[in-house]
Amino acid sequence: MITTVPAFTDWNQPPGQDELRLIPIGGLGEFGMNALVVHSARSLFLVDCGQLFPSDDQPGIDSIVPDFAYLEPFAGRLQAVLLTHGHEDHIGALPYFLRRWPVPVYGTAFTLGLVEGKLKEHGLDLDLLHPVPDYGRVAVGDGEVEAEWIPVTHSIPDACALALHTPQGVLVHSGDFKIDPDPLDGRTTGMERLRALGDGGVRLLMADSTNVQRPGRSLPEAACREGLDAAFRQTPGRLVVTTFSSNIHRLQLLLDLAYEHGRQVVLLGRSLERSMNLARSLKRLALPDDILLDVKDAAKYPPSELLVVCTGSQGEPLSGLARLLRREVKGLPMEPGDRLLLSARAIPGNEVAISRMLDAAERLGADTSLEGLGPVHASGHGQREELADLIRAVRPRQMVPVHGTYRNLRAHGALAASLGWEPDRISLLDGGQCLRLFQDGLVDQPGAVPVGKCFVHEGVDHMVDARVVQDRLILQEDGVVFATLLVDPTTGALAADPTILSRGFVMLSDDETYGELLRGVARKAFEEAPAEVRRDPEALREAIRQALRRIIRKTTQSRPLVVPVLLEAPQ
Amino acid sequence: MITTVPAFTDWNQPPGQDELRLIPIGGLGEFGMNALVVHSARSLFLVDCGQLFPSDDQPGIDSIVPDFAYLEPFAGRLQAVLLTHGHEDHIGALPYFLRRWPVPVYGTAFTLGLVEGKLKEHGLDLDLLHPVPDYGRVAVGDGEVEAEWIPVTHSIPDACALALHTPQGVLVHSGDFKIDPDPLDGRTTGMERLRALGDGGVRLLMADSTNVQRPGRSLPEAACREGLDAAFRQTPGRLVVTTFSSNIHRLQLLLDLAYEHGRQVVLLGRSLERSMNLARSLKRLALPDDILLDVKDAAKYPPSELLVVCTGSQGEPLSGLARLLRREVKGLPMEPGDRLLLSARAIPGNEVAISRMLDAAERLGADTSLEGLGPVHASGHGQREELADLIRAVRPRQMVPVHGTYRNLRAHGALAASLGWEPDRISLLDGGQCLRLFQDGLVDQPGAVPVGKCFVHEGVDHMVDARVVQDRLILQEDGVVFATLLVDPTTGALAADPTILSRGFVMLSDDETYGELLRGVARKAFEEAPAEVRRDPEALREAIRQALRRIIRKTTQSRPLVVPVLLEAPQ
Repeated sequence: MITTVPAFTDWNQPPGQDELRLIPIGGLGEFGMNALVVHSARSLFLVDCGQLFPSDDQPGIDSIVPDFAYLEPFAGRLQAVLLTHGHEDHIGALPYFLRRWPVPVYGTAFTLGLVEGKLKEHGLDLDLLHPVPDYGRVAVGDGEVEAEWIPVTHSIPDACALALHTPQGVLVHSGDFKIDPDPLDGRTTGMERLRALGDGGVRLLMADSTNVQRPGRSLPEAACREGLDAAFRQTPGRLVVTTFSSNIHRLQLLLDLAYEHGRQVVLLGRSLERSMNLARSLKRLALPDDILLDVKDAAKYPPSELLVVCTGSQGEPLSGLARLLRREVKGLPMEPGDRLLLSARAIPGNEVAISRMLDAAERLGADTSLEGLGPVHASGHGQREELADLIRAVRPRQMVPVHGTYRNLRAHGALAASLGWEPDRISLLDGGQCLRLFQDGLVDQPGAVPVGKCFVHEGVDHMVDARVVQDRLILQEDGVVFATLLVDPTTGALAADPTILSRGFVMLSDDETYGELLRGVARKAFEEAPAEVRRDPEALREAIRQALRRIIRKTTQSRPLVVPVLLEAPQ
Repeated sequence: MITTVPAFTDWNQPPGQDELRLIPIGGLGEFGMNALVVHSARSLFLVDCGQLFPSDDQPGIDSIVPDFAYLEPFAGRLQAVLLTHGHEDHIGALPYFLRRWPVPVYGTAFTLGLVEGKLKEHGLDLDLLHPVPDYGRVAVGDGEVEAEWIPVTHSIPDACALALHTPQGVLVHSGDFKIDPDPLDGRTTGMERLRALGDGGVRLLMADSTNVQRPGRSLPEAACREGLDAAFRQTPGRLVVTTFSSNIHRLQLLLDLAYEHGRQVVLLGRSLERSMNLARSLKRLALPDDILLDVKDAAKYPPSELLVVCTGSQGEPLSGLARLLRREVKGLPMEPGDRLLLSARAIPGNEVAISRMLDAAERLGADTSLEGLGPVHASGHGQREELADLIRAVRPRQMVPVHGTYRNLRAHGALAASLGWEPDRISLLDGGQCLRLFQDGLVDQPGAVPVGKCFVHEGVDHMVDARVVQDRLILQEDGVVFATLLVDPTTGALAADPTILSRGFVMLSDDETYGELLRGVARKAFEEAPAEVRRDPEALREAIRQALRRIIRKTTQSRPLVVPVLLEAPQ
């Protein structure tokens, strides 16, 4: 509600020779839109380029991407985008970014596979993509900075932390991570390499703060096997599981269990199919033979021999699960004996949609209870002890919590403090706030650069103006009242009674008495306007708008958009 | 998403001589709008009359009340409203109900005190209110039914269950309840009376299902003392606590602790002051001497000697807490050393607003963490073992779970089944679904009566039409496009170029190229309309609307409201 960060007044001047700027233009103080600008005299690149899912106060918007205003003065100098992993909040803004700045994009195979799908949709050049193996290194730009991809465990294959070798020292960015000691794919978090970096001296650590408020360690992914297995055992009919489409490890668990329990698998949802195909082609998923079933053939199997994996864990109305619950999937009813298993967390803001989805399943007779099953979901983000492990491995000179609400960031700072880090070695940044590292070891926070949110509507190839979204917020609360006044251009008088029309307004357009009241007010405002206002259409419209707003507010206590239209009557 | 309940075709015929109808016209399958119609040949009354807080898909609405359509055919016969307790979801619709049907209202003192405030605001007759003491009995209507108020513990003073003594047998309605063995006010749940009713034979139990999915027993209110005390001890600056204004027991705990810790108390928020004044006047709250402080005097005390209790636990933008966080409360800053304590649960749908509120406090330097404090909130609803206790005490012939999502109701039914109740003794009802009891012991579910939601906008003294809310849902997603066409009445031709104006639409009104496209489409639709359409303004408007919708959808993939206006050019 309040931001108290002062502006960085010289932000549009290039950094000095010994200066490195770190600017989170998204992803701090909220979840989503992760994008970090790294900027020195010779280097300028981005770490991640994510989108934010819109919330209630951004209606009608498909996604939100960062405002890259900071980059404009330095546009010709942009060198690369480095990606930690393939979740939407880390790659979702890439098409919009690359259209403006078609620079090379580096990341691991699964990450770039997901990006490739996006670039194809947007007709962008696939040659921009450069896969990097685990522990691979890439020289960025003119080679001043070298980036190194260090594997981490997370809820998506091929996730990495990044080590940036810069003249200002080694910077470590954790990406999204947990320390799963025994991941399904055997690809553990590279703690040894991180410790080695710590031995050599790490200048700064930026680390994932998502689960810092949870004590202890996160549940290993393999621990879900037990709960999922119980669900298989305790479900006499169809087992319907919804999870995030990129959670390939979860999908692997489900496929393995389906094989063991003799169930054929139906996948519902386009993103799930795409993600599975990508994982198979990269050998990140081992598929038991003949286990996949086309949905058209599902009716041929008894319910007890079916597993349905579907999108829609957040209650999305267009998802595979929503279609199933609306009975739109032929041959796949949901009925007593079936179970709907939510194998995902609720993203804040989706709780009501998820609750309605579970109720819809129960109304069809399905069981949605998780009781007595054991764990069926494990978070991809490490908890407090894991975050402490990372800090202790890397032993950074400076620590910057990232990826979380503001209170997550503060709690992460407090964790570092509890491990012995002095307060001046912990930098709390909010969105847009710049941190500068100098070669002599100094650090400062000169303030915030211009940042913001850009609204994407997928049907048009430009951003939606913020004023449109502002108007929608008024429209959704109080609607709109249009007043059309026909003016005789010869006499300057009204040529007809004003016309009033409304939509979404508390009074219906067909309320004649109220319409007459508004027409009278509009007429009076027109006729009583001083001569100089009459001559100025903008001022005249404003006078009519104000008069209508006043009477509407007084009579209905509502504040719709009021739009007066002045038309010249033809002669 | 799907309701499969058939209609009760004869719902508008009066019940037969031996028939009693129970109709939950709200409160089942969702939280809020609790209202139960009890209807026999000689009796017709309501148990509770609550409102529902609007969710995202009801924008611009202040509250939602039940559609009382079922009562219309029997309007003259309505006899009373019986209230279990004073929460908004049980009394909030009363003013709208009583304006239509001014019948006597019965309830306990604190409940009616809260209702009184509402009736005054709406200018309604206070003589309708008839207080009933704990264990008091009231003959309803012509005396066929006797109602009995049995105290229960809940998160508001004076909460009751109801026993209805009818010719069809004794019906018990639990109200909202927990079984707190040691409540702060010493007023325990009347288990003895409930058991005695069970001994005599209870025909039907309707019981609160809110917390049925939580195993074990709810935390007693007194258990919060420990966590709250820790917050007092561990807060060097101001302690700011937000809770529900009617939670007088929580307020009592806070006042007692403030006294012990030598903190003066500032209350912020009108509803909190009203609720406290009512509780004091009824001796439901014991106030230590001189402990309350006017907010104007808060600056005179050091932060460590202040407790601020405020409304706003759900992130409401107009609440005391929101004003505090926006720094609008003079003399009461929030700053490092202070603590904001959320002593309430998040009502589903408010998670994002609450998270933002906590972040706003952290940005000001306040601590919002609950870690290491112990419990600071106890639910007012009993958990599984308490619900089982009630069933075992009452031993009803028939069981109807109420007050919950559909899966709560099903889980409550499953609980009764696990206690040995046969499936045919457990009736799952959804909103509007009628249950009939006959004197010969038979029970049936003839289907659903007409039910629905009415939308209240507090500024107008009638309900908001559902079409208005429908339009707002479109407006918030895609906005509105108005097209004004001036027609020459003599020739029937366009007298000027069409005018296009939009608000909240993805393309801005000042995009000239796009405006020209739409003007051209509107003109063409007008000019190419067949003669018979030209003669029919409604058909002509529809033709223009369709043409504009098509081109808009094709060019922007959005579906705004399109409103064509045909105006006659004056001669």
